[in-house]
Amino acid sequence: MAISLQPPTKLLPIAGIRIATAAASIKYQDRDDLVLFELAKDSSTAVVLTKNQFCAAPVEVTRAHLDTSKPKYLLINSGNANAGLGKQGLVDANRTCISLAANAHCDRSEILPFSTGVIGEQLPVDKIESALPALLSGLREDAWLSAANAIMTTDTIAKGVSDQVNIDGNIISITGIAKGSGMIRPDMATMLAYVATDLEISDQVLNEILIQAVEQSFHQITVDGDTSTNDSCVLMATGKSNVSFNDLSKQAKDSFILKLNSIFLKLAQAIIRDGEGVTKYISIKVEGAQTKAVARDIAFAIAHSPLVKTAAFASDPNWGRVLAAAGRATDEPIQIEKISLYINKLNVINCGERSKEYNEESGQKEMQKSEIEFCLQLGMGDSEITVWTTDLSHEYIKINAEYRT
Amino acid sequence: MAISLQPPTKLLPIAGIRIATAAASIKYQDRDDLVLFELAKDSSTAVVLTKNQFCAAPVEVTRAHLDTSKPKYLLINSGNANAGLGKQGLVDANRTCISLAANAHCDRSEILPFSTGVIGEQLPVDKIESALPALLSGLREDAWLSAANAIMTTDTIAKGVSDQVNIDGNIISITGIAKGSGMIRPDMATMLAYVATDLEISDQVLNEILIQAVEQSFHQITVDGDTSTNDSCVLMATGKSNVSFNDLSKQAKDSFILKLNSIFLKLAQAIIRDGEGVTKYISIKVEGAQTKAVARDIAFAIAHSPLVKTAAFASDPNWGRVLAAAGRATDEPIQIEKISLYINKLNVINCGERSKEYNEESGQKEMQKSEIEFCLQLGMGDSEITVWTTDLSHEYIKINAEYRT
Repeated sequence: MAISLQPPTKLLPIAGIRIATAAASIKYQDRDDLVLFELAKDSSTAVVLTKNQFCAAPVEVTRAHLDTSKPKYLLINSGNANAGLGKQGLVDANRTCISLAANAHCDRSEILPFSTGVIGEQLPVDKIESALPALLSGLREDAWLSAANAIMTTDTIAKGVSDQVNIDGNIISITGIAKGSGMIRPDMATMLAYVATDLEISDQVLNEILIQAVEQSFHQITVDGDTSTNDSCVLMATGKSNVSFNDLSKQAKDSFILKLNSIFLKLAQAIIRDGEGVTKYISIKVEGAQTKAVARDIAFAIAHSPLVKTAAFASDPNWGRVLAAAGRATDEPIQIEKISLYINKLNVINCGERSKEYNEESGQKEMQKSEIEFCLQLGMGDSEITVWTTDLSHEYIKINAEYRT
Repeated sequence: MAISLQPPTKLLPIAGIRIATAAASIKYQDRDDLVLFELAKDSSTAVVLTKNQFCAAPVEVTRAHLDTSKPKYLLINSGNANAGLGKQGLVDANRTCISLAANAHCDRSEILPFSTGVIGEQLPVDKIESALPALLSGLREDAWLSAANAIMTTDTIAKGVSDQVNIDGNIISITGIAKGSGMIRPDMATMLAYVATDLEISDQVLNEILIQAVEQSFHQITVDGDTSTNDSCVLMATGKSNVSFNDLSKQAKDSFILKLNSIFLKLAQAIIRDGEGVTKYISIKVEGAQTKAVARDIAFAIAHSPLVKTAAFASDPNWGRVLAAAGRATDEPIQIEKISLYINKLNVINCGERSKEYNEESGQKEMQKSEIEFCLQLGMGDSEITVWTTDLSHEYIKINAEYRT
């Protein structure tokens, strides 16, 4: 069960983006598993793709198409990742683009394909091809919610966020959807995210904005430390508001980016709240590090520790495991006598010694909550980071042991 | 249940090493949990300790004592790690040494203390002190097996190996014991290992031999990627065989070291065979890497992947997860078209394409075995490594969620 996460009830349409969904029975039955995004002419698009060296075929095709053309369509399927299939995978990813291009009368390089799901099984291209005419005729602005549902795999709840920002009297809208639940870690995971705004933003600026937004959101979450072969995050700007980012004041730019970053962060946190088998939503804040890199190494060592995660699952205030994970995370010196540790607001360790307010009972009370924050203060510098993760439950194992059955 | 691992039935005594065990009820009832090793005068000792920056109090005391004196006694307790306790932990670790020194009429710095067990709970020093007189009066050469049992925590089987090597007509004996099951990864884990020989070896040479032996054994295993605060590995040489390592021919030196390394490797592998919740004993061999470091990074990324480990638990030939873990492990280039992957002898991927002999059924047949080898051939160079790990089972979570209850 997801932790304090409700499915979106309404997502704002973005002028210039039309969406259709369809049920192609790729893996799942009786639900949509195909999504088509259509971008208005002159829209800008920025894309961050997985750094996994064994990236999936659609990622390779998307990368090649981005080098050639301005994207006009995004074609997304769930249920099959089209990864680990060698040349056949590339043939299949290209075939879906060629078919869509023929139906939509555009160049195949104007299409970006995305897949998410099981690795190593051949993509049923025929099923996708059959659904293309209906997708093209069903395009409409108000289908973000259907798209959020159609891209889900092991997700239990659809993830989407909308917001508006008033810039000098003009209402700018931003809507984003994401999917992801397992195989989640920085450098993008088995996640897909699509965010769009009606602001006009050049490709280059949009790319800079996307990299910043991903850095403080999807790059600060982890479920299991595994980076997927298919991760993709797309940011689109249609310009249909007739307001251009470039013409904005510094202050207006900042308020737009603040809003956009907040949407990215909410989507990233939604992925953790719905992480595979999650019973605890865990924030790990590391403060007082020498550098951001040290803070990050320590925070992720704690976040990835199966012992910390199983203790959280058991509501066991086994803070020794948090310190043990921190102690192996970096070669930079850390001094126990400078360390303080909090579980939520409860002080556990104060300057290297057990805090007087801490006892097993008070610790357990905090650990029993469904949202837990570990705050580790190192006292070695001014850098800090927060990362978000899940516990490690029986359900996680069940999900991942039975994923293909 | 441990995988193909039998408890040792007989361990050879090492002349110059006397051992006693006792039940001090530190955490466990009705079993021995204290061990005392006595080293004959002029024995050499080499020690490798955890690199965890938050090392336990006994590790700090051991490090300080090694700087001052030649060790005469090792005092080991299970059930309590005496870690994460600030100044109190140091006071307690020192108190055990002071008491033993008074009973044994030696200097406290001649005693090395070791603890393994729960982190963050105060060491019951009184219980240990009460047992000291009986330990001292019970010392005998033939107690290695009792010691192997007494140092266990979540281990289900005692771990010990003995062997002899004939060097120019002289029989040299080597006996080693180890404990460890969870919180296991390179740089030593919640493991303790004590190995002794009756060969005469200088402190400096013994240290070099130990570092080499640990490198190819305990540094190539992982259960959960967590490095403990208490890991210690001790190699002792009593010289009671009246044969000196320094006087040996190159060939005789090599055959001794080969035997010693093999004992270290067997102990390390025994820890994996008895890893927490293990149902599969997994070898991960990476061949054809540019450097040993690349091979190691890839092998451990696979070994630590919860997705690979849960697939192994489910006997699911989800080889895509192996490739996905490898693909995120290194920044050095790896090329899918050069990759081959085997599960045991079954060829899964051949030069980046699915092998013709592979199908789901043949893959499942291999994965159902209790011993699985993934062999990943990169075709990028000549470096290789093998690491050993466990699967990730419901039992692992049960053990670690309930450890302190």
